[in-house]
Amino acid sequence: MKAVIAQGGGPTAVVNASLFGAADELARTLPGSAMLWGARDGIEGVLAERWFDLRRPDADFWQRIREAPGAALGSCRKMLSREEAARAVEVLRRIEARYFFYIGGNDSMDTALKMQEAAAAMNYEMFVAGIPKTIDNDLPHTDHCPGFGSAARYFAQSAVDLGMDIRALPTPVSILEVMGRNAGWLTAATMAARENADDAPHLIYVPEAPLSAGRFLADVEAAYRRRGWVVVAVSEGVRDEMGRGWGERKGAAADGFGHALPGDAAAMLAALLTSELRLRARSEKPGLCGRASALLASNVDRREAEAVARFAVSRAAEGSAGFMAAIVREPSRRYAVHYEAVPLSGVANVERKLPLEYLAASHNDIAGSYRDYVEPLLGGPLRRYARLDSEAMAGSDS
Amino acid sequence: MKAVIAQGGGPTAVVNASLFGAADELARTLPGSAMLWGARDGIEGVLAERWFDLRRPDADFWQRIREAPGAALGSCRKMLSREEAARAVEVLRRIEARYFFYIGGNDSMDTALKMQEAAAAMNYEMFVAGIPKTIDNDLPHTDHCPGFGSAARYFAQSAVDLGMDIRALPTPVSILEVMGRNAGWLTAATMAARENADDAPHLIYVPEAPLSAGRFLADVEAAYRRRGWVVVAVSEGVRDEMGRGWGERKGAAADGFGHALPGDAAAMLAALLTSELRLRARSEKPGLCGRASALLASNVDRREAEAVARFAVSRAAEGSAGFMAAIVREPSRRYAVHYEAVPLSGVANVERKLPLEYLAASHNDIAGSYRDYVEPLLGGPLRRYARLDSEAMAGSDS
Repeated sequence: MKAVIAQGGGPTAVVNASLFGAADELARTLPGSAMLWGARDGIEGVLAERWFDLRRPDADFWQRIREAPGAALGSCRKMLSREEAARAVEVLRRIEARYFFYIGGNDSMDTALKMQEAAAAMNYEMFVAGIPKTIDNDLPHTDHCPGFGSAARYFAQSAVDLGMDIRALPTPVSILEVMGRNAGWLTAATMAARENADDAPHLIYVPEAPLSAGRFLADVEAAYRRRGWVVVAVSEGVRDEMGRGWGERKGAAADGFGHALPGDAAAMLAALLTSELRLRARSEKPGLCGRASALLASNVDRREAEAVARFAVSRAAEGSAGFMAAIVREPSRRYAVHYEAVPLSGVANVERKLPLEYLAASHNDIAGSYRDYVEPLLGGPLRRYARLDSEAMAGSDS
Repeated sequence: MKAVIAQGGGPTAVVNASLFGAADELARTLPGSAMLWGARDGIEGVLAERWFDLRRPDADFWQRIREAPGAALGSCRKMLSREEAARAVEVLRRIEARYFFYIGGNDSMDTALKMQEAAAAMNYEMFVAGIPKTIDNDLPHTDHCPGFGSAARYFAQSAVDLGMDIRALPTPVSILEVMGRNAGWLTAATMAARENADDAPHLIYVPEAPLSAGRFLADVEAAYRRRGWVVVAVSEGVRDEMGRGWGERKGAAADGFGHALPGDAAAMLAALLTSELRLRARSEKPGLCGRASALLASNVDRREAEAVARFAVSRAAEGSAGFMAAIVREPSRRYAVHYEAVPLSGVANVERKLPLEYLAASHNDIAGSYRDYVEPLLGGPLRRYARLDSEAMAGSDS
């Protein structure tokens, strides 16, 4: 008998904590004779029968894997057809795999669902479970997604740092591009960078609200008049009022899921400021670095990434199948969570966008209520810095 | 009697360690009756007579300022004319300032030199000293520049992280854009990310060597064929064989020194890969975040940033003038430095580019000898991560 684990979609800083959690829990739960395999490069590795033996690494090595960014098993972007799902289950049946755990986001949950359905149609008893993972935080029926808190911490800290830099300099405008094609959760998290009213970022734009050129220019000009420097945070997928992405480039290739490859929205918007307002503006786009930095990861996120995977294994071992492990936030004042199983059928292909209630009425900022949502996920306060202020201003005496 | 400190040009993660070092050393060196002022926003603050009283913050507050990114006094980009230099000295004479310390890069050293010359022409005895600061590492007559080591650490660590992410995914190419308009020191530092031959970055391009489209496409294609994934590091100022910057945008505004504002070279190159090779490629541009991250700063850099400023003060207090404090590396095997004074006249307006001997003969990589130069400046090893490798590959048994 075997259990198989795979990782799908874009990696996160803590996706290997989930891999470790699942592997370790399986080793403790399954009989010692059971084999524990990792599929190489996600579902592609199942189809191609390329495996890691996850019982081989020793405890020390697992401790190091657990902390590594990137997907240790390799990953893929693949939209599985029903035929491919049947083929994948056929492979798993042949190697006598009874458990399949897929660590991933929306598309991976669709894959997991199709495999569970294919197994049922083939009358093969297999327990398929999804383990959530996405910096986009756009899976439904879970309070949040492992990987999000760490990326949120990275971008919020970057906004703090960038604010310290830009406020000191007469390059007056910087636009920080944050990952997120359709959902603004991560961009919204930069609001946690603010301690005082004057702090960066001063404007935040997410894909959930259209952003016209005129609106953007007016917002930045007003913010610039107020303080003389402006830091803007924008989602890479921010769109204009026609629904066209600001970062869409002619000839950009689509990825394996048929998504356009966005990016450079911030650069486009900076160029607009320069040409229309004659404001020196620049853009920063940490991009993938923002999801790959284990050094700036959130310890809460890391802990939950492991725990949610352990939960998925224990529920599958108890006989549950066709579910995704979800994080449920307790209503208590002090941050606490528990885990539940939600049906894959309710998760697959559903994209949970940032609710409009979290947008400021002006649509150029995030509502204060979002802070209560996001701050506990950052794993402790951001690093803040002192500034010389008017108290240290010398008198006009000479 | 007064001493005045100012900060010019782009901030670094450790420029306030220099501010602290200079202020603290002055407080210990000058008579208790001497005033210690900071000019707000660099030389602009001298001309406009806007000051901080640097004796006001207490020791605790100074400890916090010392660790903050950004320029605590504010900074400016301004090319000072001879007339303005005379006006600035006139202001300093009026407030009885005998010492002027300018923490900055090439342009700031030019300002310091002009002020020293203006003071001499006016027969006003004033001791002007430059304290080096630039992530570009392009000041001559110093082994390296404070601020460089921290930015180098940030970008090298980002290259490690990015490699972990990209190698796991079928988005096969990522181009990491590194700050540096004319000098490739910082981009070259990403070579320190490599531990094994397979590690990122696989190609490194600096402004010192022209990069044609044909050459770039051939290099990336070859690297891609070899491993199936490629991480490229490019300087923001990388140029084609006609000398035209890859990142030059039509209508980009110039900054106060008349430099064009570059950026987006990586995005342009990624678009080229997509259109010409049909390779899905993306770009990451941490930009200013790379010089503003105190969390990822180099402790060696931080220590030297403070020490070089203390040296400048002590030499000025002994009667030296018209010099920049420089870092001299000892020929010993174990990394060690001492400080020397070099004439401002030999520093101002001289840009030290990356010597061609540090480029690989192929001009698409950095020579191994550069590692000996750069690694000690990073302040300890980068964070490395484990990977599942062929040892954990399962057999073909089923």
